[in-house]
Amino acid sequence: MKEELQNENTSIPYGKNGLVKKIQEKNVKYNSQTIFGIGDDASISDFSGGKKTLLRSLIFAEGIHFDLTYTPLKHLGYKVVTAAVTSIYAMNAKPLQITVSLAVSNKVMQAHILEFFDGVHAACKNYKVDLIGGDLTTSRKGITIAVTVTGEADDEEIVYRSGAKPTDLLCVTGDLGGAYLGLQLLEREKALFNLNPETQPQLSGYDYVLKRQLKPESPKELTDYLKKKEVKPTSMISLSSGLASEIINLCNASNMGCEIFQERIPVAPDTEKMAKEFNIDPVIAALNGGEDYELLFTIELKNYEKIKNNDMFSIIGSINAVDKGRNIVMKDGSIITLEPSINNQTFQNVQ
Amino acid sequence: MKEELQNENTSIPYGKNGLVKKIQEKNVKYNSQTIFGIGDDASISDFSGGKKTLLRSLIFAEGIHFDLTYTPLKHLGYKVVTAAVTSIYAMNAKPLQITVSLAVSNKVMQAHILEFFDGVHAACKNYKVDLIGGDLTTSRKGITIAVTVTGEADDEEIVYRSGAKPTDLLCVTGDLGGAYLGLQLLEREKALFNLNPETQPQLSGYDYVLKRQLKPESPKELTDYLKKKEVKPTSMISLSSGLASEIINLCNASNMGCEIFQERIPVAPDTEKMAKEFNIDPVIAALNGGEDYELLFTIELKNYEKIKNNDMFSIIGSINAVDKGRNIVMKDGSIITLEPSINNQTFQNVQ
Repeated sequence: MKEELQNENTSIPYGKNGLVKKIQEKNVKYNSQTIFGIGDDASISDFSGGKKTLLRSLIFAEGIHFDLTYTPLKHLGYKVVTAAVTSIYAMNAKPLQITVSLAVSNKVMQAHILEFFDGVHAACKNYKVDLIGGDLTTSRKGITIAVTVTGEADDEEIVYRSGAKPTDLLCVTGDLGGAYLGLQLLEREKALFNLNPETQPQLSGYDYVLKRQLKPESPKELTDYLKKKEVKPTSMISLSSGLASEIINLCNASNMGCEIFQERIPVAPDTEKMAKEFNIDPVIAALNGGEDYELLFTIELKNYEKIKNNDMFSIIGSINAVDKGRNIVMKDGSIITLEPSINNQTFQNVQ
Repeated sequence: MKEELQNENTSIPYGKNGLVKKIQEKNVKYNSQTIFGIGDDASISDFSGGKKTLLRSLIFAEGIHFDLTYTPLKHLGYKVVTAAVTSIYAMNAKPLQITVSLAVSNKVMQAHILEFFDGVHAACKNYKVDLIGGDLTTSRKGITIAVTVTGEADDEEIVYRSGAKPTDLLCVTGDLGGAYLGLQLLEREKALFNLNPETQPQLSGYDYVLKRQLKPESPKELTDYLKKKEVKPTSMISLSSGLASEIINLCNASNMGCEIFQERIPVAPDTEKMAKEFNIDPVIAALNGGEDYELLFTIELKNYEKIKNNDMFSIIGSINAVDKGRNIVMKDGSIITLEPSINNQTFQNVQ
């Protein structure tokens, strides 16, 4: 993909304004809160319904968060929106709007920028968020992407990282480790291709982990599901880093300890298969991998009956007093202290 | 500055979280709307006072928008906030909050990131906006900065680009062309230094244009001044590109023509002096330069008496029907059609 970006020579004959218009043409308005989007010095929203407004900004850099050698730009556009809205879901809120800004070298063609925004628009449709603005600029080298998302919730519905209490059940949506193994697979095929450019990438049969890496989905149904069950999480955090790091972040914010069980960490069969091929323990992939964009949350023990046997999330352990530490009970009964994943140079999760 | 960034070798012994904490420590809350800033998955604001909420995102790339050879990072932090809040003032609204995200190569020291945020905090204090979030990540090369700003206004106070009508007076705050000439000066000294590294940069006596380039101020008093005079602009736009481009943007949005007068374009004496030294026509600097972060707006002719002889803005011309074109009347009586400045490769002003 990278080579393609830099070598194609056809050019689309519209300037900056035409490009923005192209992006704007595909805009769909999903929320009545959006009064005015692209087209003036600022976007205008009517938030005056008594609700709270949520906002989060993220930035993604080429070579750090994504590799255009194997990442289709459309998927990348989808993924950055998924990452952003997950932050809003993690507050138990509803995402409403996003802005997406790009700094791209002038080697990147306008057609590829539009491809990226096709992915953004697809994600907007899926999560029902309005693209209300953004900025485009050239860069000297590489692509940097900045996303800001807004959301809303009634005050009493908002869930912080800091609300976990002893005996609360620790839960996680979906399954983990797939995005990490998808990345390992893509990196392996890239390395083989670099050694011998006539190699055909061996990607068939690996759809699941590839999708987890390239086009992750946010668990958007959780908030409504729990509301219907009349269960409000006591704390919640999004899984952009690995499970271990995020459990520690949640426990730090709540000043709590916890105990989780290796055998309860949800790993998909395809992830497990892939892990075996790479000789990686799937639990290590789940604990340290990152980019799963699932939700980690706690609910009071008394709510167990209401949510048991659901197929949306797994109960992986429970909250303890802080002096009990943050531990994982392995299948053989041994207990290991959870450590944040080392792979944290990207400064992710600033907020 | 660039050399200094890359060569200094002392390192500050706190990781990502420590760095965020350092930034957070200097946060001041100015607005009751800010309920929760940095520290969870999203910031929370209470916008439920019946007002509208405004939001704008911008992105700035090293080598395109700024050159660290001569730009102190503290000034850069100040400048990006100035650019962002000017977008909100340009809607006749009050800025409330910003998020600032950075992608920086790991050659950049944490101390320099903090210096940048010192500038951000200084600007926050000046414009009374709350830093409510942001993101930090590494990049493979260079610095990219993304800023999102929110603001508020009563619905009936909001001013769009599109409201100008024939006979309206075209006004501009402050004076123009200074930022452009400051840039020319810095580029000249950089070129001399590159030829002979023992050259001392000759910057003394040029304070005004340097300040206009490195630490511009947004005309934050305009909104209140006009409100006191009971004058509501009919249209408004911020001057991030040159005056000519922004007049054309405003006229396009309003579907109007205009006539401005060369002799009325406000240029500071220091800017004029500098222009002479560079053999540049100061009016060309004002029309095509950019980065002045002043406000261009229109008011109804009937309001002339209320605002005449003010020292905050100049009346540079008036609005015409669209078929009259967009023209500048030169001192010698000749009439020239306004053209957007050529220097627009940076895709600035997407919204």
